[in-house]
Amino acid sequence: MEVWLKDGEQLDDLQLNGLKIIQKKNAFLFGIDAVLLANFVSVKSGCTALDLGTGTGIIPILISAKTGAKRIVGLEIQEDMANMAKRSVAMNALNDKIEVLHCDFRDYAKKNLGAFDVVISNPPYFRAKSGMLSQNSPKMIARHEITMNLADLFQSAAELLKPKGRFYLIHRPDRLVDVFCSAREHSLEAKKACLVMSKSDSPPKLILIECVKGAGAELKWIEPIVVYNKDGSYTDQINSIYSRT
Amino acid sequence: MEVWLKDGEQLDDLQLNGLKIIQKKNAFLFGIDAVLLANFVSVKSGCTALDLGTGTGIIPILISAKTGAKRIVGLEIQEDMANMAKRSVAMNALNDKIEVLHCDFRDYAKKNLGAFDVVISNPPYFRAKSGMLSQNSPKMIARHEITMNLADLFQSAAELLKPKGRFYLIHRPDRLVDVFCSAREHSLEAKKACLVMSKSDSPPKLILIECVKGAGAELKWIEPIVVYNKDGSYTDQINSIYSRT
Repeated sequence: MEVWLKDGEQLDDLQLNGLKIIQKKNAFLFGIDAVLLANFVSVKSGCTALDLGTGTGIIPILISAKTGAKRIVGLEIQEDMANMAKRSVAMNALNDKIEVLHCDFRDYAKKNLGAFDVVISNPPYFRAKSGMLSQNSPKMIARHEITMNLADLFQSAAELLKPKGRFYLIHRPDRLVDVFCSAREHSLEAKKACLVMSKSDSPPKLILIECVKGAGAELKWIEPIVVYNKDGSYTDQINSIYSRT
Repeated sequence: MEVWLKDGEQLDDLQLNGLKIIQKKNAFLFGIDAVLLANFVSVKSGCTALDLGTGTGIIPILISAKTGAKRIVGLEIQEDMANMAKRSVAMNALNDKIEVLHCDFRDYAKKNLGAFDVVISNPPYFRAKSGMLSQNSPKMIARHEITMNLADLFQSAAELLKPKGRFYLIHRPDRLVDVFCSAREHSLEAKKACLVMSKSDSPPKLILIECVKGAGAELKWIEPIVVYNKDGSYTDQINSIYSRT
């Protein structure tokens, strides 16, 4: 298997249908966010999905096994990451289902208007701060709004989606006003939300959101996801999500 | 005490400093929302507060005992309710601290620009639907956006507040996109949120929000409030809030 890996890269087993993923510690290792988001996404059989900022391709690979998606496109602006994702797709023999493209999603969206049933994103959570060091490091780009911001994300998602198409994202609750307002500005109405709490009595740490293009206002909240029991072990909820990974 | 009560009215003990309130079953009985909101509000010593849609005056009466507010104004558009609130204020000998006015808050706001440190509201939760029956019943007016809507509420709150003044409200989570977007449109940025859940594993039922006039974006979430234990009894959290009522 060595031919697939470059310097500093590692191969991880996704514990799902024998799927594997190439990752790089210094660049980006997928976390619970990606697993929760892939679990939250619903893609009906025969439908098309697109992942904005796919990184190592973790989301397309997971949802290829978890949903009925016919075709999944992953867009990634960092060439090294896109290359890693392409090799993971090939290694899993998913080339007929998943296509990874190294491009700026804003350009791709303009050329693929209304082409997708579902758009997904696990975007950078933090605002870019002026004077930030190492703006070009893969980790910084994955975590901070350096190459794009929320308005770009919602605009491109709206462009890419068919009418009534769905946009799934995960974000930090401290950005929720930005998320809701930016979504609505781009005709993507937040329709379903799920909070993720570290423990049942702690403030929410993450929020999963489903937006529908052109839908009316009314947000449905589903049962929150609690990650840890009081003794620090994973809850049954998380164990069940991971076993379905 | 009979002279204070009119037909159909009842007198309830607030279990707080001997305070009492006049209510009317057919019109409006205060619920857990008012108690949670009054508990969430902070008014610094010597500051002024205003309650938009005060109903029976429950919020001004509670916060007169729970905060350092120097002066509290309650505005109520329904004459019967305003009259009940005025009698409750007088009965509790709070006339020097609380003033209840029977008026449309939109008119009052235009004439009292920047006059308050804190504005509070437990507004009607539901959108008005065309063809609704009994639009004029006190219960309908308290529950549905018949005499006002969210945009009116945020506009008047913004007008009434000093710069950096705080607006506290409670609402239903299914209206949260409306709340956040309308707040931001009127320069009231949501800065603190607290979810209220019926049980620890159920979706949120209510949300408490603190907005700050002219503040920058970033929403802090505090520990959620869980109302019931699994056996249906009140949680310690709720018992402690009620004992501080």
